[in-house]
Amino acid sequence: MTWRFALLIEPAPADDPRTDFAATFEVVDAATPALSVGELSTQRGDGIFESIGVVDGHPQEVAAHLERLAHSARLCDLPIPNVEQWRQAIAAAAAEAPRVGEGVVKLILSRGIEHGPTPTAWVTGADAADFRGARERGIRIVTLDRGLDSGAPARAPWLLLGAKTLSYAVNMAAIREARRRGADDAIFVSSDGIVLEAPTASVILRLGDRFVTPAHDGGILPGTTQLSLFEHLASLGHETAYETIPVAALAEADAAWLVSSVRLAAPVSAIDAAPIAVDGELTAAFNRYLLSPRD
Amino acid sequence: MTWRFALLIEPAPADDPRTDFAATFEVVDAATPALSVGELSTQRGDGIFESIGVVDGHPQEVAAHLERLAHSARLCDLPIPNVEQWRQAIAAAAAEAPRVGEGVVKLILSRGIEHGPTPTAWVTGADAADFRGARERGIRIVTLDRGLDSGAPARAPWLLLGAKTLSYAVNMAAIREARRRGADDAIFVSSDGIVLEAPTASVILRLGDRFVTPAHDGGILPGTTQLSLFEHLASLGHETAYETIPVAALAEADAAWLVSSVRLAAPVSAIDAAPIAVDGELTAAFNRYLLSPRD
Repeated sequence: MTWRFALLIEPAPADDPRTDFAATFEVVDAATPALSVGELSTQRGDGIFESIGVVDGHPQEVAAHLERLAHSARLCDLPIPNVEQWRQAIAAAAAEAPRVGEGVVKLILSRGIEHGPTPTAWVTGADAADFRGARERGIRIVTLDRGLDSGAPARAPWLLLGAKTLSYAVNMAAIREARRRGADDAIFVSSDGIVLEAPTASVILRLGDRFVTPAHDGGILPGTTQLSLFEHLASLGHETAYETIPVAALAEADAAWLVSSVRLAAPVSAIDAAPIAVDGELTAAFNRYLLSPRD
Repeated sequence: MTWRFALLIEPAPADDPRTDFAATFEVVDAATPALSVGELSTQRGDGIFESIGVVDGHPQEVAAHLERLAHSARLCDLPIPNVEQWRQAIAAAAAEAPRVGEGVVKLILSRGIEHGPTPTAWVTGADAADFRGARERGIRIVTLDRGLDSGAPARAPWLLLGAKTLSYAVNMAAIREARRRGADDAIFVSSDGIVLEAPTASVILRLGDRFVTPAHDGGILPGTTQLSLFEHLASLGHETAYETIPVAALAEADAAWLVSSVRLAAPVSAIDAAPIAVDGELTAAFNRYLLSPRD
C-alpha cells in the first residue's frame, strides 16, 4: 500500500506559547488540490524546506532538521518557525507512516500567497523510493562546476547559499546532466576547484584513517545526515574533519559517499568515469546506523 | 473591482494538430485550491514561466513570450510547449481582463506532480500593481554581485542561466537586499564586473546617442520588452547595440532604465546612491509606446 499524507499548517509565531497546536493543522488529501495558484512557492520557488527520513514510523533527527529550517528562514527573511508547532506536525505525519519500512516527511514553509498576509506551510508524508541499489552497488558521479567561486557565499549573502530554498531547478538540472553523461548523480565544485556538495546530498571522503567533509563556510548546506554520521564516527574513535577539499583530492580518496536524509549513505563507485573502490562493509555499517532510531 | 483569473491547462504535445484547445482548459477560482502538494513547481521551483503585460484587454508581445517559453523549456528539458494551445489560453485569460487598465497574464509550465506522468500548466490573470511612481519619479538601484563570472553560462549550461525558471528565490532576495540598502531594485553584475540584468527586468543605458543593453550571451534572459523597445528605437532612427558593459559604464551613462513586461520602462534615478538624471520626456515616450497595442 502506498503512503500519502498531507497536512496544512497555519504558521504560528515563534513565541506562540501554546503547547498544543492541533487546532492549527488540517489534514488534506495529498492527491487533491490544496494550494492556490497564487502560492509564491509555486510561482517563484520562494520558500524553504526540509526532507526528514522516517524509519519504521520514527522521524529521524527532527531537532537538527528544525534547526536548519530556522537557519534557512533567517537567511530568507521568513518568519522564524515555531519549533514546537513543527515538531507536532512532524509527529502527526509520522504517526500515519507505515510501522515498517522507510518514508519521507517533507516540511515546506512558503512566503505565502501573493499579496497575502502570512506565509503558508505544510507537511507531506510518503513512502521512500527503494534505494537498496544505490546503497549496495554505489553510484557513479560526475563533478559539475556550480559557477561560483569560493568567495561568493561570504561576499553575496543574497545568493542564499546556506539556505535550503525551494528554488531547486539548478539542482535538478545538474542531476539530469549527470545522467546524460552516464552517471547517477553530481558533485558541485566551485569555479576555483573546491569540492562543495551534491545537488541533494553531502559529500564525505575517507582519506586514510580520516573522514573528511567540505567545510561549512556558508557555501553549502550543513548536512543533517553528515553531521549525525560524523558524531557516530567520532564516538567510535574515528577522526573526522571539515576541510577545504580541492577537486584533485577526490581522485585520491580511499572511499567516498554521498549522504542524505532519505537515500542515506550511497557509496561512490566512480568519479568522472574513473572507478573508485566501494567499501561495502563500511557502507553497510553506516546505513545500519542511519536506519537506527536517531534523535 | 479586482481581476483574478486562473485557467488550468492539460498540456498538449507541440505537434498536436488541433486548432481548438478549449477542451484542454478548465477555468478555476484563483483564490481556492487548484494545485496538489505534490506539485514540483512548489517543491523545487521546477518549471518555467512568463509574465505578459495586458493593456486595455490586449496581451502584449505574445509571440515573443511564447518563443521565450519554448526556449526555457528546451534549456530545462521540459516538453516543448504547443504554441497554439498557449496562445488560446492567453486569449481566454485576456478576454476576461478589464477593458480599461493594466493587467498581467502569467504562464506557468511545471514539471508536474512528483512521479506523475506529465507536466502541469496553468495561466493566471490579475490587475497590475500601480507603477506610475516608478515610471515617473524613477527607481534607485544598487549593483549586486551574482557570484558568477561571465564565462559561467557557456561553461555550465546546467545553471540554466538563459531560462526563466520558477526558481526565483535569489531574485527575490536581491530585491530585499536592495530595499535594505534604501534602494528600490537591483542590477546583477558578474563577479568579473560585467553588467547583467535586474532580478525581474532588463537594463538599458543611453550612452550619448546610443541605446545599449547587455549582450545576450546566455547569461541573462533575453528581454521581450527590451527587444520591443529596441525595435521601436531603431525604427525611429536611433542606434541600438548589445554590448559587454563594464560596471564602470553605469556611472557614465547619460540615462538608464529597467524595462520589463508589466512595470514597463522605469528610469533609474540613482545607482549605488549616486544620482543619475531621469529623462522624464523620453521615459514618457517609451511608456506611451509600451502601452500601445504590440504584437
